Amino acid sequence: MKFSIAVMPGDGIGNEVVPEGLKVLKRAIEVSGEPVELELKNYDVGASRWHETGETMTDEELESLRGHDAIFFGACGDPSVPSGVLERGVILKMRFGLSHAVNLRPSKLFSGVTSPLANPGEIDFVVVREGTEGSYTGMGGSVRTDTPHEVATEVSINTWYGVERAVRDAFERAQARNKKLTYVHKHNVMVHAGHLWRRVVEKVGAEYPEVTFNYEHTDACTIYMVTNPSRYDVIVTDNLFGDILTDLAAAVTGGIGLAASGNLNVEGTAPSLFEPIHGSAPDIAGQQIADPTASILSGALMASHLGLDVVAKSIETAVEADLADRDGTKRSTAEVGDAIAARLG
Amino acid sequence: MKFSIAVMPGDGIGNEVVPEGLKVLKRAIEVSGEPVELELKNYDVGASRWHETGETMTDEELESLRGHDAIFFGACGDPSVPSGVLERGVILKMRFGLSHAVNLRPSKLFSGVTSPLANPGEIDFVVVREGTEGSYTGMGGSVRTDTPHEVATEVSINTWYGVERAVRDAFERAQARNKKLTYVHKHNVMVHAGHLWRRVVEKVGAEYPEVTFNYEHTDACTIYMVTNPSRYDVIVTDNLFGDILTDLAAAVTGGIGLAASGNLNVEGTAPSLFEPIHGSAPDIAGQQIADPTASILSGALMASHLGLDVVAKSIETAVEADLADRDGTKRSTAEVGDAIAARLG
Ligand SMILES: CC(C)[C@H](C(=O)O)[C@@H](O)C(=O)O
Ligand SMILES: CC(C)[C@H](C(=O)O)[C@@H](O)C(=O)O
Repeated sequence: MKFSIAVMPGDGIGNEVVPEGLKVLKRAIEVSGEPVELELKNYDVGASRWHETGETMTDEELESLRGHDAIFFGACGDPSVPSGVLERGVILKMRFGLSHAVNLRPSKLFSGVTSPLANPGEIDFVVVREGTEGSYTGMGGSVRTDTPHEVATEVSINTWYGVERAVRDAFERAQARNKKLTYVHKHNVMVHAGHLWRRVVEKVGAEYPEVTFNYEHTDACTIYMVTNPSRYDVIVTDNLFGDILTDLAAAVTGGIGLAASGNLNVEGTAPSLFEPIHGSAPDIAGQQIADPTASILSGALMASHLGLDVVAKSIETAVEADLADRDGTKRSTAEVGDAIAARLG
Repeated sequence: MKFSIAVMPGDGIGNEVVPEGLKVLKRAIEVSGEPVELELKNYDVGASRWHETGETMTDEELESLRGHDAIFFGACGDPSVPSGVLERGVILKMRFGLSHAVNLRPSKLFSGVTSPLANPGEIDFVVVREGTEGSYTGMGGSVRTDTPHEVATEVSINTWYGVERAVRDAFERAQARNKKLTYVHKHNVMVHAGHLWRRVVEKVGAEYPEVTFNYEHTDACTIYMVTNPSRYDVIVTDNLFGDILTDLAAAVTGGIGLAASGNLNVEGTAPSLFEPIHGSAPDIAGQQIADPTASILSGALMASHLGLDVVAKSIETAVEADLADRDGTKRSTAEVGDAIAARLG
């Protein structure tokens, strides 16, 4: 089997963590004995390219990404580039262009990892974040810009089609896990989008009689994340709420350095993308001090998505073992990658 | 001095905590020796009225609220009423109609109160949440409703005028506190509204050279709330982000049962409103087990807003003393109110 992977380290620590993610993935494939070959193709995205050429990602590149089986992404963003240019020009261009309906973000408190919460209990849930609409479409604009009479709008777009894709994926996951789904919105205020979400969840939910589902307001959900995160199994929510809640979830499960994600094309019409939840972290970039664990776990998510379940499982096991043994000794980014690769056998 | 206060217990535990808030406020005024008279007028809002009459709050009532010096509010919302009806018909009707530009939400970890965080350190910040625009306007709608082709929109409206009112208030508060302001948005994604916010903050910030300000993405801010809440002094943010962040802030400072808020008309064109951050909590309503502390502290915020600083301070001191002495003994809602009132001297 040959898999063609588009690799995009991007900016900042993306360049340090992506090589570790790939190192561990390659080693896990080797050790598994499976006849799998990875064909890697690098794509140059990020701040330097934009400074040199004014380009973020061309339409031709987006098109050529369709030829790959998956995309392995690092991070994008740099203070030298106006906020939004790389985010909209690279990250969101792919999520929207490749129809990444589901942004999957597992949250697990691994044994050995200390949560900043006092008594977190067991935490093991996944957030299914809708990835192609909501407040992320860029629709809206401004008039009388930069005057005291400026009006700026952001239009959140929500379709039955888009919401149903994410909600159905979430019910499938809940069915395969502990059969508990929480859908999170703010339907007491955002009544148009909120009630669309409610109707979709109720309709799709009727097809999954074994799954219990309940509703929480986004604000209430942040409270429970802190006071009682063990209550969650699968959370489904919109693009913006999902962005906020998954960072919070990463914080309560020991940090953004461990949080992996997959941007999934659930219809199989284009490749899915795997990336750490963290950003380019320009403040610590280039020093080999970033934790590559999130990228390594993103590699496991990618392997699982490609059907390489044994490979995925072995990476997770190696990461868990490494986490359980961490004693505060400082290791470089590459050393963490080496240590995890070494545990694969 | 005579102050005319509109009192709205509303739904659920609103009916239990508001009397305690008023009890403590009256006692604090009495003890202060100040020649202050409170004239209270009850307004019937909430689920029962809606069921009986189909009304939430009439335009005439909204108009008559203008005749009061302040509004003392409990909570609104009940599972028997479709989500959004009471929220939009009562709470948001007042916030928008009475131009409550600033939703002020102080977060303080009182001594003696345990935070669910492991090592929270000192926490003492205020969130200035914009209160009259953003995603809360209700603008938007849906087409092909309840069909597989439904499209629903929510339009976030942001004006220089509205954002500046909140941002200016925040800089004033930072100037009077520790001179540190954090503005929170998601301007890497919501570029139209986000860059309006950025421009306003930079423009207004130039008038406050002593105040240092920095920017954080909303998602990053939730992480810091958990890992390093001591970093904040004043936070200013939009309506929706503020809703989410203040519930999170309440959670890390020991719970929503303690969090008070003021919806402030900063131009003095209509009365401001004071309310607990918590909702009507139908699950525990009618049992006299709700903690009235948030309502009592909302009374202190109202007193301070009316210029009764000695009264406000004495309520806060009494609450702090009560909190420091809490040992887990169960007390009824009224008993907590009595105990705090008794500490006033
Ligand atoms: C970088 C940014 C566009 C992105 C988002 O908001 O989705 C990030 O925060 C994430 O969660 O992947
Ligand atoms: C009840 C609801 C409309 C309200 C809001 O979203 O603002 C509440 O959550 C709050 O924070 O006061």
